[in-house]
Amino acid sequence: MSREIDIVRSVADLRARVRYWRDQGLAVALVPTMGALHRGHLSLIAEGLERADRVIASVFVNPTQFGPEEDFSRYPRREAEDAALLGGAGCHLLFAPRVSEMYPAGFATTVHVAGLSEGLCGAVRPGHFDGVATVVAKLLLQVRPDVALFGEKDYQQLAVIRRLVRDLDLAIEVVGCPIWREEEGLALSSRNAYLTPEQRAIAPALFRILDTTAQALTQGGEVSPLLAQAIRDLLAAGFDSVDYCEVRDAETLAPLDRPTRPARLLAAARLGTTRLIDNVAVGALS
Amino acid sequence: MSREIDIVRSVADLRARVRYWRDQGLAVALVPTMGALHRGHLSLIAEGLERADRVIASVFVNPTQFGPEEDFSRYPRREAEDAALLGGAGCHLLFAPRVSEMYPAGFATTVHVAGLSEGLCGAVRPGHFDGVATVVAKLLLQVRPDVALFGEKDYQQLAVIRRLVRDLDLAIEVVGCPIWREEEGLALSSRNAYLTPEQRAIAPALFRILDTTAQALTQGGEVSPLLAQAIRDLLAAGFDSVDYCEVRDAETLAPLDRPTRPARLLAAARLGTTRLIDNVAVGALS
Repeated sequence: MSREIDIVRSVADLRARVRYWRDQGLAVALVPTMGALHRGHLSLIAEGLERADRVIASVFVNPTQFGPEEDFSRYPRREAEDAALLGGAGCHLLFAPRVSEMYPAGFATTVHVAGLSEGLCGAVRPGHFDGVATVVAKLLLQVRPDVALFGEKDYQQLAVIRRLVRDLDLAIEVVGCPIWREEEGLALSSRNAYLTPEQRAIAPALFRILDTTAQALTQGGEVSPLLAQAIRDLLAAGFDSVDYCEVRDAETLAPLDRPTRPARLLAAARLGTTRLIDNVAVGALS
Repeated sequence: MSREIDIVRSVADLRARVRYWRDQGLAVALVPTMGALHRGHLSLIAEGLERADRVIASVFVNPTQFGPEEDFSRYPRREAEDAALLGGAGCHLLFAPRVSEMYPAGFATTVHVAGLSEGLCGAVRPGHFDGVATVVAKLLLQVRPDVALFGEKDYQQLAVIRRLVRDLDLAIEVVGCPIWREEEGLALSSRNAYLTPEQRAIAPALFRILDTTAQALTQGGEVSPLLAQAIRDLLAAGFDSVDYCEVRDAETLAPLDRPTRPARLLAAARLGTTRLIDNVAVGALS
């Protein structure tokens, strides 16, 4: 199962590999990532192997989705470890382009998804989802996979991507995969590596509080007071600030006064300069 | 040669036809139009037949590229005549979707090309090129042709499309085809039908003045005074106003003080409520 994985860095080489597989009638899956891979990412590879004959992972820390004050330069980069993990997971190809391959001189195009990109993380990270939508559109068009897999941890991102794939007629199946968590419930994230031991001890409270709140909402509790309580609980647990804690329609991400449709409880909270996000399902009230 | 052309209205039917051709190894060309076809459009079909085995024309009057004060509702629509012309020209398929097929409920995505979309027509028609870029991206992704053909009359549009095709890794050859003109030089345009006989008599001055100005520029004449003179000449010829008359880099559309690289002279001028555009090549000074 484990093997050394091939790495391609140009779109031309990537396409040659995909064409070779296509000529054999093989189905192709793509798992776009920013690297610093953890078990959550590897679960996407595993799901890709279930759904296609060949799985490509991309590792690209996309500068256009980071704000000027954000962590682009310090975002963890460890390609050798990533390549070893991907090879061990049975992934067939790693596409790791340089920035100049993705955005050559003169690059000028942006893909914008209205509505879904606003609010939640979009309110705190202006331009972030334009960067995500554009780079994901490019990766999908470079590979043209049958299926593309994304983690539900970036739930708003997943909704944006589903929308753009539908709107731009990409004819690719988008699959969202469940969040992977540590024993205490902390969602796996490449950014967890930023946490000090003290912050790491506080971090699991994010999921614990979301989980408790989602259960109360599913049982018919009122939205506003439960969200206000959740924010108070996050601050009391030691988070330095809460960017948002909201209940949204699970598909459209429209704000919900009552979760009468399948809904999602989403939050972002900060520990020092590290921003953690998480989300959980809320059952629909009849 | 002449035949009744098949018309499809859904992306699913369109794709089934393209897949059938692809399975036979045939190359496919796409000619996107807004209908009200003239000889200029038919020259694109002819060029498509030179370059591919099958040619698809789309006819879609795209609402998102018209401003609220513009001529979307009165834009000429004559599908039966268009279909007859296309069949006669040897075109293999007409894709004529309804607005709801292109923009179903929930549609939220925009493709924006910075720089090239600004200035010239973009300055007078805010949002126009976002509408163009988005609908052309969709048509290209619905058909996935080998080659797509556009007229040079919409020169800025052609530059925007070339850019987005490159930036979004569409792997489609974009071909720009020469402007077709009446005997007196008036560029063929579906909007010429709006002109009164008096306006129609004035209209050829647009090309005549651009042509004279481009010759003077190619011979090394100074840009600013020649453009100012061209605008005066257009108004003296009877145009009611001039939106712009500018010299730009032929590829990047960057403003040029001196045409030291291949350049383009572009203008938009109005006769009553009708807006005419035209453009001509300017030779590079050594």
